[in-house]
Amino acid sequence: MLKTGERIDQLHRLEIQIIQSPAVFSFSMDAVLLADFARLPKQGQIVDLCAGNGAVGLFMSHKTNGTITGVELQPRLADMAQRSIELNQLEKQLKIVTMDLKDVSTVIAKDSVDVVTCNPPYFKVTPESQKNPNQHLALARHEIATDLKTVVQTMSGLLKMNGRAYLVHRPDRFLEICDELRAARLEPKKVQFIYPKAGKEASMVLIEAVKDGRPGGLRLLPELTIYDQNSEYTPEMRKKLFMDD
Amino acid sequence: MLKTGERIDQLHRLEIQIIQSPAVFSFSMDAVLLADFARLPKQGQIVDLCAGNGAVGLFMSHKTNGTITGVELQPRLADMAQRSIELNQLEKQLKIVTMDLKDVSTVIAKDSVDVVTCNPPYFKVTPESQKNPNQHLALARHEIATDLKTVVQTMSGLLKMNGRAYLVHRPDRFLEICDELRAARLEPKKVQFIYPKAGKEASMVLIEAVKDGRPGGLRLLPELTIYDQNSEYTPEMRKKLFMDD
Repeated sequence: MLKTGERIDQLHRLEIQIIQSPAVFSFSMDAVLLADFARLPKQGQIVDLCAGNGAVGLFMSHKTNGTITGVELQPRLADMAQRSIELNQLEKQLKIVTMDLKDVSTVIAKDSVDVVTCNPPYFKVTPESQKNPNQHLALARHEIATDLKTVVQTMSGLLKMNGRAYLVHRPDRFLEICDELRAARLEPKKVQFIYPKAGKEASMVLIEAVKDGRPGGLRLLPELTIYDQNSEYTPEMRKKLFMDD
Repeated sequence: MLKTGERIDQLHRLEIQIIQSPAVFSFSMDAVLLADFARLPKQGQIVDLCAGNGAVGLFMSHKTNGTITGVELQPRLADMAQRSIELNQLEKQLKIVTMDLKDVSTVIAKDSVDVVTCNPPYFKVTPESQKNPNQHLALARHEIATDLKTVVQTMSGLLKMNGRAYLVHRPDRFLEICDELRAARLEPKKVQFIYPKAGKEASMVLIEAVKDGRPGGLRLLPELTIYDQNSEYTPEMRKKLFMDD
């Protein structure tokens, strides 16, 4: 079942096994936090864009009985995701489609989805990023094959009215993200900043936006700090990483 | 020197005495945090809008040799500020002008100021707020005599190119604040969210915006939590309140 360089990982006590490969794609803490942050309906249709090896969908599967469709451009990554779905016997709940997210409405009807999640490429394209010899990692990290505007417009197109979009991204692009969301009829309603350690600047932001939501009333959820002063995970973080009972 | 109902307060070890009156106006933690947050030039011209009883200017006086002009609409509050300036013998550095901030360019030249600070009224006008029997407090808390757009446009008008604006406000209006700032050529560059306690939503936001600053690259400064789990000030907060040596 495993291809060269691949291994099976598990997120501590969460009984989900994930196939990954350091040379191709491994899920990050960002995916774990996004899956934890998203509020999911008990039933309904959920879509995860930029699905990579399927980690976000797999981590969300225990939170809902709804169906989760991952959309991934790279066949190599979608193939890992598909095999992880089979490994966990989640074929009835999860599936992966291999395609450019901008074409997703050819397979998932517009205005039909309850929740869309996305852990998109964070970085704008630079001369450096285009020279990255590892194209798998380059595509996942840099806006080579898609960009923020396309991601956000695609999320909005899929969502029903009052459907919810969940994004994880970098704080330095926070205002640009909010601009794009609002331009696409997605009103930011909840934001959580993630700090690596007390006294450090935020390194990550989680955003919930509601399609056609009323402007205003933004809520800044309790901050989350990843490491304590001894560089151990904080109790809050251990919980999100399924490290405790 | 004191009028009926007034008293002299001091912020722990900071050797500044401030005249206030619970029935008219008392400085809040917001003013302390704004004064702490603002990066001031060693020399130059600093303006504090919505100055109230002058607390922000007085608290900033030890951080700069520049001149600080407070602008306050209410004569009763401006009078307290003026007497506090005299009480601290800071007449050479600080002054108060009593006027509507929208007319401030009649006394301070446009494009001449290095730093503008403001702790504005936070709340939109409601039928309730207009019925508040204490007009002094109502004007300080609700957008009766001014509003966010006017405050931000006034800040921008005063500032030199690359001058810095500092605002303290409520997180629920964060996106609206950023919109107004950017519409007034003030680019948000640093943001700090203040949380009352671990596990609680942010209750306050501090914003630094730069006039004609380049868009993007927003920095989310380390979070500040006010109280620990025993409802005592955190060490970081004690420092900002001048409670420790």
